[in-house]
Amino acid sequence: MAKQDRAIRTRQAILSAAAKVFEERGYQAATITEILTTAGVTKGALYFHFQSKEDLAQGVLGEQDQRLVVPDRACKTQELVDTVMLHAHRLQTDPMVRAGVRLSLDQQAHDLDRSGPFLRWGEVMRHLLEQAQLQGELLPHVVPAETADVLVGSFAGIQAMSQAVSDYQDLPDRVCALLRHLMPTVVLSSILTSVDLSRTRGATVYTELAEALEELDKVPVG
Amino acid sequence: MAKQDRAIRTRQAILSAAAKVFEERGYQAATITEILTTAGVTKGALYFHFQSKEDLAQGVLGEQDQRLVVPDRACKTQELVDTVMLHAHRLQTDPMVRAGVRLSLDQQAHDLDRSGPFLRWGEVMRHLLEQAQLQGELLPHVVPAETADVLVGSFAGIQAMSQAVSDYQDLPDRVCALLRHLMPTVVLSSILTSVDLSRTRGATVYTELAEALEELDKVPVG
Repeated sequence: MAKQDRAIRTRQAILSAAAKVFEERGYQAATITEILTTAGVTKGALYFHFQSKEDLAQGVLGEQDQRLVVPDRACKTQELVDTVMLHAHRLQTDPMVRAGVRLSLDQQAHDLDRSGPFLRWGEVMRHLLEQAQLQGELLPHVVPAETADVLVGSFAGIQAMSQAVSDYQDLPDRVCALLRHLMPTVVLSSILTSVDLSRTRGATVYTELAEALEELDKVPVG
Repeated sequence: MAKQDRAIRTRQAILSAAAKVFEERGYQAATITEILTTAGVTKGALYFHFQSKEDLAQGVLGEQDQRLVVPDRACKTQELVDTVMLHAHRLQTDPMVRAGVRLSLDQQAHDLDRSGPFLRWGEVMRHLLEQAQLQGELLPHVVPAETADVLVGSFAGIQAMSQAVSDYQDLPDRVCALLRHLMPTVVLSSILTSVDLSRTRGATVYTELAEALEELDKVPVG
């Protein structure tokens, strides 16, 4: 294994351990010592990648960004729906995404800047809405930045409610209900009729992405 | 002061102290000892009112319920909007409400049943929506229980986002934006045109309630 690959794997192992510890203890009570033990790496290796507990938390928060990309769609409203539904699917299935979302809602983490994921998710949503607007998919009154904030904020609460009442079992249904309530005030009805808003959409997009990645692996390098 | 009044005041003092400690430490790290010190009451007094830390947390969570009531309105959509906007105003101004909302979103509080406020808020919203539906204010496809869940969940996230990015400074604007995005898919436009959805609505209703309470105090008892 090349030196660089090893460094990437060590970094991932540390982040996975940090995600686990932050999720169990919360930001405030988590310690670097416990993250070290859980990751099974040396102190030197950890401090090579991360300077502090806050740095580790920002690393976990940032991992959500790696997971924002869905396949391009001709209909930008569909791409937006796909982004939201895929995120919901990953919240159900990926501990790193779950840990990041919980950290960003950890109101006891006073000295941790948790605005990052809200702002970055806001940017992604705003960009997709602006593209949809350019293509004439949106109602004339829509202000993309405002609608993006509403989408990001309400999604954050819907997932928290789903976690509190069903440990994420009902998340796809709740996210569908949210989108069915919001989209008609944002998107032209003639566009909405051909958008897939079904509860299985997140899993469908996930499979599509996984298959595309497999195809990529088959392409000979060089 | 009558014995009963004293008991009510002691209970309030304990709950205020618990709210403060839970908000600072989070549920997991909070201790009964710190709540005792903050409240300045005896151990006996505390255990007379609350059996355990969970009991104290449920007390704080339950305090939100005391604050759900807004004046009756002929238009039930307005009453619903008033309930939501008043809650936003109280989040900005009342530490007990803030502590309750944060506790209900404290994802590290594994052994605390946090579903209560979501379910009770859901009930209040559903009841108002059902009344609005009976009066013919809603669009024909609306299912009150589903819309109630969307409202409660999305509000929870909007407030968390507002806390993370502005420490609640922008809360009224964000809640207004949310309602302007949701209400048109729920309520007839002919009704919506006469509903006050402005950002100052919460403060207005708060003043109205405070004045009504003052009037009540003036009525001679007996």
